[in-house]
Amino acid sequence: MKPKIQDVAKVAGVSSTTVSRVLNNRGYISQKTKDKVFAAMEEINYVPNDLARSLFNKRSYLIGVIVPSTNHPFFGELVANVENACNKVGYKVLLCNSLHEADKEKEYWDMLRRNQVDGVIVVTYNRGLVDSSQQLPAVAIDHYLSKNIHVISSDNFQGGALATKELIETGCKKIIHINGDAALETPANKRQYAYEEVLREKNRFYKTYHVPDVAFLDNNINVIKRLFRDHPDVDGIFASDDLLAIHTLQYAESQGYRVPDDLKIIGYDGSNLMRTIYPNLTTIIQPTEQIAINAVNTLIQEIDGNTQIPQEQIFPVSLWQGKTTRYTN
Amino acid sequence: MKPKIQDVAKVAGVSSTTVSRVLNNRGYISQKTKDKVFAAMEEINYVPNDLARSLFNKRSYLIGVIVPSTNHPFFGELVANVENACNKVGYKVLLCNSLHEADKEKEYWDMLRRNQVDGVIVVTYNRGLVDSSQQLPAVAIDHYLSKNIHVISSDNFQGGALATKELIETGCKKIIHINGDAALETPANKRQYAYEEVLREKNRFYKTYHVPDVAFLDNNINVIKRLFRDHPDVDGIFASDDLLAIHTLQYAESQGYRVPDDLKIIGYDGSNLMRTIYPNLTTIIQPTEQIAINAVNTLIQEIDGNTQIPQEQIFPVSLWQGKTTRYTN
Repeated sequence: MKPKIQDVAKVAGVSSTTVSRVLNNRGYISQKTKDKVFAAMEEINYVPNDLARSLFNKRSYLIGVIVPSTNHPFFGELVANVENACNKVGYKVLLCNSLHEADKEKEYWDMLRRNQVDGVIVVTYNRGLVDSSQQLPAVAIDHYLSKNIHVISSDNFQGGALATKELIETGCKKIIHINGDAALETPANKRQYAYEEVLREKNRFYKTYHVPDVAFLDNNINVIKRLFRDHPDVDGIFASDDLLAIHTLQYAESQGYRVPDDLKIIGYDGSNLMRTIYPNLTTIIQPTEQIAINAVNTLIQEIDGNTQIPQEQIFPVSLWQGKTTRYTN
Repeated sequence: MKPKIQDVAKVAGVSSTTVSRVLNNRGYISQKTKDKVFAAMEEINYVPNDLARSLFNKRSYLIGVIVPSTNHPFFGELVANVENACNKVGYKVLLCNSLHEADKEKEYWDMLRRNQVDGVIVVTYNRGLVDSSQQLPAVAIDHYLSKNIHVISSDNFQGGALATKELIETGCKKIIHINGDAALETPANKRQYAYEEVLREKNRFYKTYHVPDVAFLDNNINVIKRLFRDHPDVDGIFASDDLLAIHTLQYAESQGYRVPDDLKIIGYDGSNLMRTIYPNLTTIIQPTEQIAINAVNTLIQEIDGNTQIPQEQIFPVSLWQGKTTRYTN
């Protein structure tokens, strides 16, 4: 038999109501009584029912996290950091891998609401899910969901400019950009705007190719092939995702291009994993941990009813100097 | 005001009890009544409270998943597959990244019990947490936690033998193995046993170096350096993790070894991510999706009270032929 609240009360020599008040942190209870109750819980191995408490307190300390998939170095790192940040402040993470399917995302939103999560952190390419999200506090990482949802992102414009300037500085004459789906309104599009602006200001050639989905590579190879067929004289490529950059690199090398001699390539994200296993790839590092911590803190402020939250919080990025743009030691 | 169960009853023209029975799927209700109730829910945008229902049904449809970190290609892929498998059968995942800290794992076990999860899937290097796990249905992936916890793993012995034979076949004379912490009782140790047995049977040299933690690389480089200092004539290395294999490869190349000419290297795990970005690395592929699906199904059987569950389920692995052991096209 599982020990009950009454058993705790008996061992502690207090009433069940007192035990309940200690557990729910309601009303004034002396430290001495609290100590007795906790000691009794320990003694008879009583496990408080957080589910019941959630219902009673109308607070579940559950946060839903919707990502495309943890099977991607950037999202895997982001989820790990979000979960760590939640754990430190007593929140738990309900994980949802949407696999970029709009239907699945909608189902997850419904599920999260039914399960009384206190809020949601969204890192997906939602379309038309704004309505269903209105009832829940939510923070979006690097995506615009609707006017009333706070956005945390890194400085995508700065990142796009840094990447483009690195290619210009290292002598590229024809620089091409590969980005995700152009139809999505994401802050990540600022990488493309920056790339175009930097080159336009110098009256230079610019052109952006769009892949169906930066994070899932299977369909992207045809776009990469087309890029090289259209522009065999390309000598600089800025890819808006590290995996995409590596696929581009692999294809270029298979076609006889030498990197960085004939062709320079720069990626985006710079997760710890990629920098560990592919230190040679020049890339833009997003401050994943900072983004995660601030997303969690912002969401909790929102849950707590704080109305003084900035609509958008932008954190600076940095350049990881690898060997796909210049020779370094 | 949020719509309540009474509002649904009113719109549907049935009693609140009937609505409750439909929601909890209890007692006989005609399809016609069900349809009316669901239509009414839709009409007034009623969101059922799964939390309350969990408490009532003593079933939360929550599964805790404890992994070292989703910030690792193998664990990131495994978590994505586990969550997908759970989602398909109506279960939700509470994610816990233990970061390999025993204290944190213990806290997670306590948290999961307090939150009334129906069961736990564990993919960590638990030590001494067996007691606390006894009250909850649990399935371990690739770890022995205690006699009464079911284990799902891939065929580590087969994998170790495959890897070792690949190095023998490609002409290696001095083959060294790098493994994780020897003190942990994990099925992964069978990779080492297989390596040693295959070489012993041929009366050949064998030696295993142990790194503190296969998944976190920072502390491993010293072990790799020692290996090359002790055995500069090593010409074959079997590393029990792909990241470890890549670190070894990077260090070897920095010391002037040419791979695969002077030195052949084979890794372990073969996640989709690694095969995508590092197709050249010869490795052993674990059937992650199969492991995930079977872990989820086994856990649900256990939750449902099925006692006819095999203690250990082992799935076959396969060799990914890259270019770090031989030249291929």
